[in-house]
Formats: sequence, C-alpha cells, structure tokens
Amino acid sequence: MGRWEPDARGRLRLSAMELYAEHGFEQTTAAEIAERAGVTERTFFRHFADKREVLFAGSGDLQDAVVGAIDAEPDDAKPIDAVLAALEIGASLLPSREYSRQRAAVVAANSSLQERELLKFSTLADAVAEALRRRGVPTLTANLAAETGVTVFKIGFATWIADDSTGDFAQCIREAFGRLRALTAGA
Amino acid sequence: MGRWEPDARGRLRLSAMELYAEHGFEQTTAAEIAERAGVTERTFFRHFADKREVLFAGSGDLQDAVVGAIDAEPDDAKPIDAVLAALEIGASLLPSREYSRQRAAVVAANSSLQERELLKFSTLADAVAEALRRRGVPTLTANLAAETGVTVFKIGFATWIADDSTGDFAQCIREAFGRLRALTAGA
Repeated sequence: MGRWEPDARGRLRLSAMELYAEHGFEQTTAAEIAERAGVTERTFFRHFADKREVLFAGSGDLQDAVVGAIDAEPDDAKPIDAVLAALEIGASLLPSREYSRQRAAVVAANSSLQERELLKFSTLADAVAEALRRRGVPTLTANLAAETGVTVFKIGFATWIADDSTGDFAQCIREAFGRLRALTAGA
Repeated sequence: MGRWEPDARGRLRLSAMELYAEHGFEQTTAAEIAERAGVTERTFFRHFADKREVLFAGSGDLQDAVVGAIDAEPDDAKPIDAVLAALEIGASLLPSREYSRQRAAVVAANSSLQERELLKFSTLADAVAEALRRRGVPTLTANLAAETGVTVFKIGFATWIADDSTGDFAQCIREAFGRLRALTAGA
C-alpha cells in the first residue's frame, strides 16, 4: 500500500460493507466500492481479487493467529484446551460486533458467499488439526478437537452477534463450549 | 426409469465410480460413463444433472432418512441421543465400504467436489437442526447438537473406511462420539 493512500484497504472494506448492506452483494460493483472509498478501481484490485474477497480478507489472518496460538500453548495442554484458547485469541482479532453482524447478514443472503464461508471454516479446521498433529496429537483426536473447536467458534459467533447478546466474543465461545459439554455429557 | 432399463441408475453409479478411480474425475465424461453402463448418454442425463451429481445422488435419501428418524424418536429423547440414533440409521443406507472408500478418494482429489461435499454436510446439519427445533429444542442447542452430530458422522466415516477398520459404520459413529465426549469432558 502506497503512503499516499492511508488505509485505503480499510476504507474499501467499510465502503464495500455499506454498499452490500444497502443494495445487496450482487448489485454492487468493484467500481462503486472504489468510488465510495475515494480510490480508483485499480487500487481496489491491488487490494482484493474481487468483490467477494473483500468479505474474506481477514480469514488468513484469523487462521495464522489461531495456528500460532496453538503452537505457543504449553506442551502439556490438552488438545481441546489448546484449541479453545487459540480460538479465543483469534476471536479478539475480529472487527467490531456491528461490522461482523452486517457481514453475517450479507453472507447469509447469498448462496455463493455461504459456500465460500463453509470453505473458510473447513480450511481453518484443517489448519487447526495440522497444528495439533505437530504437537503429537493422534490424527483422529486432532480432527475431532479441530472440528469441535470450529463448531464452538461458529455457535459462539452466532450468540455474539445476536441482538440480546451482552458478552464479548471470547466469552460467547466459552459459553458455547459449556453448552456442548453439557449436551454430550447428558447422552 | 423404464422397465427396459433394469437398474440403469445403479449401473451408471458403479460405472462412474470405476472410471473416476481409473482415469480421474476431470478426465471422465458423461458419454464414457453411459457407454460403460451400456446405456445412452440421454439416459445418463435422465438420471443425473451432470457427472458430479452421480457422486451426490444419495445425499437427499440420507438426509430424508436422518430427518425421518429424528421425527420418529420418542418425545423425551435427549437431543444428542436423537441425532446419534438417526445418524446410525442414515449410516445403514450408505453403499458398501469399498464403494464409500473409492468415492472418498475421488472427492479428496478434487477441490470442487470437496466444496460440494462441504455443502452436503452443511445442508444435512441444517436439516437436523430444523428437525430438532420441531421437537421443541431451543435453536442454540439444536444447532450445537446438529453440528456435533455431523462432526461425529464425518469422523466415524473416516474411521470406517480406514484400512485397519473392523467395525460397521454405526459402530464407528458410536466410537467417535465416545471419543468426543472424552475429549470435551477432559477440558
């Protein structure tokens, strides 16, 4: 990013979200996003491959943070504890609740975005499982802990962006895990 | 299906799997599948929208069976018990282990098939959650039980098709759930 464009990327993300919320994802063009952000269309495409990727720009950062946090966990941490601690660190990187809520509404309204979102979570689960295997966790347990962690993350997210939510995202993740444990213990 | 084509659908599925395993999914055409099955290309397209859908032809049946089984569970069944019992019934509908193993290898080798597989499981989880809500289970618990059930189904499937597996699929699902419970109880 050039120095003559302070936070063009951030402005493009905000402008895109405004336009998606106002007119719908399909009806919005990259040119319109660039115009609202006060940059050229060329600048848009220097930052994002297309208008869909604006919504997924943070996925890589989230995944890197979660994997890094698992790597940094003490050697004797139990797999599910390591995953939950790492997901809470990842959760702290997400944009504001209002932005996250708007993004979720945009994704929910479009099936191709929903599929991209599924892929994001599947890739995250794979990366988490791999990080666990590097710690010596057997494959089956690593996969279970990773998939369960991602489920708890998704349910925690839904609680966090709900209208009547009061806690922060990390707290919602812990609550979701508590519910999961109660649910499975009762079986 | 006409009476002059006994089980053309079944033969098309088997022929498709053979060709995918021999030459790869991308390299196989609908015409080749039809030829090996001894039917016309037109017959192929009467049964399947495209060569991808041959691999997903059973998804709807699986989902209907699982949802039907949840509906038929006793009123006082706990959500996770209802889901697991229903998934075991669904598991009994799957083709042979050898066919399932071949299919898994074909899907794993192609990213567009992997995405379609993600969508299949996401749709299944949504349908399971909806069936639970119809039983009066609160949304959050319904979503958690559904996602957890699908995770256990996927992990159980991976165990079932593994080379050293001895149990049937339903047994693998029960074992995967036991592992999940141990994993989450230990946190």
